[in-house]
Amino acid sequence: MAASRAALSCALEQRATVVPPSSPRGKGVMPDGTSRFTLAKDGSTVYHFMGCSTFAEYTVLAEISIAKIDPAASLEKACLFGCGISTGLGAVWNNAKVEPFSSVAVFGLGAVGFAVVQAAKAVGASHIVGIDVNPNKFEMAKKLGCDVCYNPKDHGDEPMQQVLVKNSPTGFGFDYTFDCTGNVNVMRSALEAAHRGWGQCCLVGVAAAGKEIATRPFQFITGRRCFGTAFGGWKTRDAIPMLTDKMMKGEIAVDHFITHRFNGVGETTKAIDALHSGDCLRAVVHYC
Amino acid sequence: MAASRAALSCALEQRATVVPPSSPRGKGVMPDGTSRFTLAKDGSTVYHFMGCSTFAEYTVLAEISIAKIDPAASLEKACLFGCGISTGLGAVWNNAKVEPFSSVAVFGLGAVGFAVVQAAKAVGASHIVGIDVNPNKFEMAKKLGCDVCYNPKDHGDEPMQQVLVKNSPTGFGFDYTFDCTGNVNVMRSALEAAHRGWGQCCLVGVAAAGKEIATRPFQFITGRRCFGTAFGGWKTRDAIPMLTDKMMKGEIAVDHFITHRFNGVGETTKAIDALHSGDCLRAVVHYC
Repeated sequence: MAASRAALSCALEQRATVVPPSSPRGKGVMPDGTSRFTLAKDGSTVYHFMGCSTFAEYTVLAEISIAKIDPAASLEKACLFGCGISTGLGAVWNNAKVEPFSSVAVFGLGAVGFAVVQAAKAVGASHIVGIDVNPNKFEMAKKLGCDVCYNPKDHGDEPMQQVLVKNSPTGFGFDYTFDCTGNVNVMRSALEAAHRGWGQCCLVGVAAAGKEIATRPFQFITGRRCFGTAFGGWKTRDAIPMLTDKMMKGEIAVDHFITHRFNGVGETTKAIDALHSGDCLRAVVHYC
Repeated sequence: MAASRAALSCALEQRATVVPPSSPRGKGVMPDGTSRFTLAKDGSTVYHFMGCSTFAEYTVLAEISIAKIDPAASLEKACLFGCGISTGLGAVWNNAKVEPFSSVAVFGLGAVGFAVVQAAKAVGASHIVGIDVNPNKFEMAKKLGCDVCYNPKDHGDEPMQQVLVKNSPTGFGFDYTFDCTGNVNVMRSALEAAHRGWGQCCLVGVAAAGKEIATRPFQFITGRRCFGTAFGGWKTRDAIPMLTDKMMKGEIAVDHFITHRFNGVGETTKAIDALHSGDCLRAVVHYC
């Protein structure tokens, strides 16, 4: 835990969790401080987003932003590890370190939530529940590993944490809970649905600017822990090739994540519309 | 983590962290559901507080509420392990598990905060800072292990988390932070002063009823963890004899905690007044 300055510096370079807004990536530029993009019409600067800027047929990437994967991998599938799916898997395996025979509650059954369910199932969690306001998600959730799914709309004004604690295997909450919504009220439910004495709540969703999570400190005093994840705690260059290999061996199912496909960079905005529609898990845009 | 019902039941019986308000102790009665105290004047029931009710010359205790210590121990000193001092030590050793060469920030330099400082020093924390609005505490804090002390009043409107992060060894916060105040605004400072990437914040202070701690979820996403402690995670029957032995061997200094002494149960209220005065760490009442 106690890092030397050298170790810290290394951590700052390589770990998604610790990229400061003041870093080159945070500023939208290459490590040398410059942007490699300009707008054709007036020469004004276009910045690099998240160190990649891949919404383009051609891009310039810093060496540290590149991961070399098996050339035989399907690019349509491997691209899923660029963000949400890796994040959900890593939240379970790296950050929460979910153990066999645990009980797990997953709030939000989008692509990230599904990845959390799959990862929890893979390590032998014995009781997994999913929570979403869209019951269309429940069939896939159960196929992937959920034992029970809850729709908060079926429970009137009763807080979901209360519903969940009441229905948890011990009656005292879940060993691990995950917020995959980014909604601070849901985050509070996730924290308070964690097991008294040892329950751990992992925040995976990203909240809107300025929003705050609140709870009574008694929730912590009585044994709950809260933490978060950024990119599932993976280091991209090691993890993406490894996750891609695992997918190719059939150890991580990903086909169900691709619900929409588009062709050409011009359809990027259609892909984003699809993501907003609620029916889409991941939209893959094939560049020509 | 994943507890069987049997293990849970054991945990519920023995761990301070998980005593539910619905338990006999929570209800102020003995395990058989009765109180052993009545008011002489009208026979009305007097309840047992925290399973002990020791503000009396004679009491009735449940067997589980009793710890057998070395008969040679000074009772004046051993009684310190009944709550705050054990809590501060255990927060560091059991809950946060502070490691050698860590940086540590302790908010609130009362008896609990001092115990945290001592415990952090004992395990080899390399940089310990104390924060209190009463600078009279700083001399003792430094004697016990603090390298630097901060008075928030010296920093105007600047949030203490900002002052601390700026002055931390890495410039990114402290490996471990402890709130020993119970003030929810201070708890927020403690959480946000924890190191980006891996900092851990332990809530030791007990908040007033209804108060809530709030923070932006970004604090968690960027690697901070928050948890709490109740009685330092100790099991009383094992821990109090062990801590008493450690004190008798000179491994835990406690003399400085006893700032006030009173004689006779009738002076209990004077002891409580002393605790409220701000100059008192622990007031020991000798029963005759």
